[in-house]
Amino acid sequence: MKIAVDAMGGDHAPEVVIRGVEQARDQWPDLEFILFGDLAKVKPLVQNSTRLTFVQADSQITNEDEPVKAVRTKKDSSMVMAAQAVKQGEAEALFSMGNTGALLATGIFIIGRIKGVERPALMPTLPTTDVTNVVNLLDAGANAESKASYLEQWAIMGSIYARDIRKIAQPRVGLLNNGTEFDKGDSLHQEVYQRLQANTALNFVGNIEAGNLLTNKADVIVTDGFTGNAVLKATEGMASLLMKQIKLALLNSGTRAKLGALMIKPALGQIKTKFSTSANGGAVLLGVNAPVIKTHGGSDEGAVVSTIGQIREMLQQQTIHQMIAFLKANPIK
Amino acid sequence: MKIAVDAMGGDHAPEVVIRGVEQARDQWPDLEFILFGDLAKVKPLVQNSTRLTFVQADSQITNEDEPVKAVRTKKDSSMVMAAQAVKQGEAEALFSMGNTGALLATGIFIIGRIKGVERPALMPTLPTTDVTNVVNLLDAGANAESKASYLEQWAIMGSIYARDIRKIAQPRVGLLNNGTEFDKGDSLHQEVYQRLQANTALNFVGNIEAGNLLTNKADVIVTDGFTGNAVLKATEGMASLLMKQIKLALLNSGTRAKLGALMIKPALGQIKTKFSTSANGGAVLLGVNAPVIKTHGGSDEGAVVSTIGQIREMLQQQTIHQMIAFLKANPIK
Repeated sequence: MKIAVDAMGGDHAPEVVIRGVEQARDQWPDLEFILFGDLAKVKPLVQNSTRLTFVQADSQITNEDEPVKAVRTKKDSSMVMAAQAVKQGEAEALFSMGNTGALLATGIFIIGRIKGVERPALMPTLPTTDVTNVVNLLDAGANAESKASYLEQWAIMGSIYARDIRKIAQPRVGLLNNGTEFDKGDSLHQEVYQRLQANTALNFVGNIEAGNLLTNKADVIVTDGFTGNAVLKATEGMASLLMKQIKLALLNSGTRAKLGALMIKPALGQIKTKFSTSANGGAVLLGVNAPVIKTHGGSDEGAVVSTIGQIREMLQQQTIHQMIAFLKANPIK
Repeated sequence: MKIAVDAMGGDHAPEVVIRGVEQARDQWPDLEFILFGDLAKVKPLVQNSTRLTFVQADSQITNEDEPVKAVRTKKDSSMVMAAQAVKQGEAEALFSMGNTGALLATGIFIIGRIKGVERPALMPTLPTTDVTNVVNLLDAGANAESKASYLEQWAIMGSIYARDIRKIAQPRVGLLNNGTEFDKGDSLHQEVYQRLQANTALNFVGNIEAGNLLTNKADVIVTDGFTGNAVLKATEGMASLLMKQIKLALLNSGTRAKLGALMIKPALGQIKTKFSTSANGGAVLLGVNAPVIKTHGGSDEGAVVSTIGQIREMLQQQTIHQMIAFLKANPIK
């Protein structure tokens, strides 16, 4: 299994990328990597080049770049060159920590959509209040405008992912909506409800309100990309805000509270880890012809390793092939 | 100033309602109240009936009732009778802790829309990371489907509210969107951006992402009702989940952490109060011909008092009249 790596993406690239890739390489002997980047910067960081290949990329896409334009014009960037390697069969999957919009555009324009998928979706894995389970949310923001057929296609792909990668025999699929009753929502969500209800390949458990996103009511939650983006950012924003407020309140309290804070630090640290966005691997661009996965730009090498593990699992299970075959046999329009 | 009170709405009605109303009555000598409810239950709870009038209501709308149907059929319910009193000029404002959907329907069908407001919106006041400021979000969920003209009308009403009630000379109005650039969002949000930008009565500060809902980037944040509902519930859900997780983590830790937890309890309590949904008054149904305000059904009498204070301020400032006059002179279509 060979993975194309955009070595220049992310806030601490290429250091964090290289460290993560080397750890993953040491952990899984069946993996090989092609690293694309500025080799003058990349190579000195490499400890051991076993199962690593290097390809010089003369430019890189930054977070400030306009995604679609960057993908069209920066043909020699590490991200675009890594995607080309997947397109040409030199690698089977793409890993990046770079510009999310550009990675979406790269996946769609270079690697290409699965036949029968109108629009690919971004799917992170989020923690839940049940320590033994997580939840996949899609679309978390790849699409500003969504149609009912897109959401049904996403439900199928999310369900196949949860079955193959998370080993859940019949994943519970929920629809994010503004109430639990079947007739809730705008006309789009009402139509999606009917479609998911009627699709016999899905274990549809009904509408789920945003307050229950992380309370283990479903294994996969489907949403239009506009709402998905808003809900994910609101959730992450509130978590980060609350943690900061707690820190602030403790700092501004007396000695007693400061001492107390020191004592609870390990317990708070566990929660922070559990609810950090990258603890459960990266966000998959679901609906393109290969695993394309993005880890948050600010993540550490641990997140790189867990994301590469996720890619490896998708390759072993042939998850993308499963999706292609299912949608060919059961087209959704 | 006379306020019609639905004494039977809320999880702890009529006790909490009566206690809150009596406290508010003692605090503000210029307020009178008409309480609607089951007087056999209400009257024994009253300590002192100064400036309180009582009207028997034979039924009540519960949280299980289908809102529109309940308002049409339960004419003798405490909520509908209280709204009728406002409609007939016997009272100037309506307070309830009951079924939100039914209160929306009551406000729209009985008290009636302001001329020039196509759809009323639900507007809570939320805390921000800046202790000296709060933020008004609208529509927080009264409308599943929204048009660009609705959002422009909401922006005007939210701005008048922030000016009159929160005493902000030129309230910063933001648009909730999936990115900060002007061309972000679906076609609805792109059109709303253009409208808010062009409206010279507004101090429009641009798009705001859901992660910055509570970080004091704007005084008023306008959103379609579907996204507003999702973002509010996601935010509240995450806050409650995180607090529970922290409690759980501390309980499952050793003696040291438990001792630490005891020491930081007061500081955590402060944060909980600050980020509780009712600390800053109730949610206003903005766009009807009188102040109609709802406090969360599970709130305590402190929230009842602060919400009645908010109603009093709206009556003193003649906020609804300001909105009626402005939209008459500057119609938005």
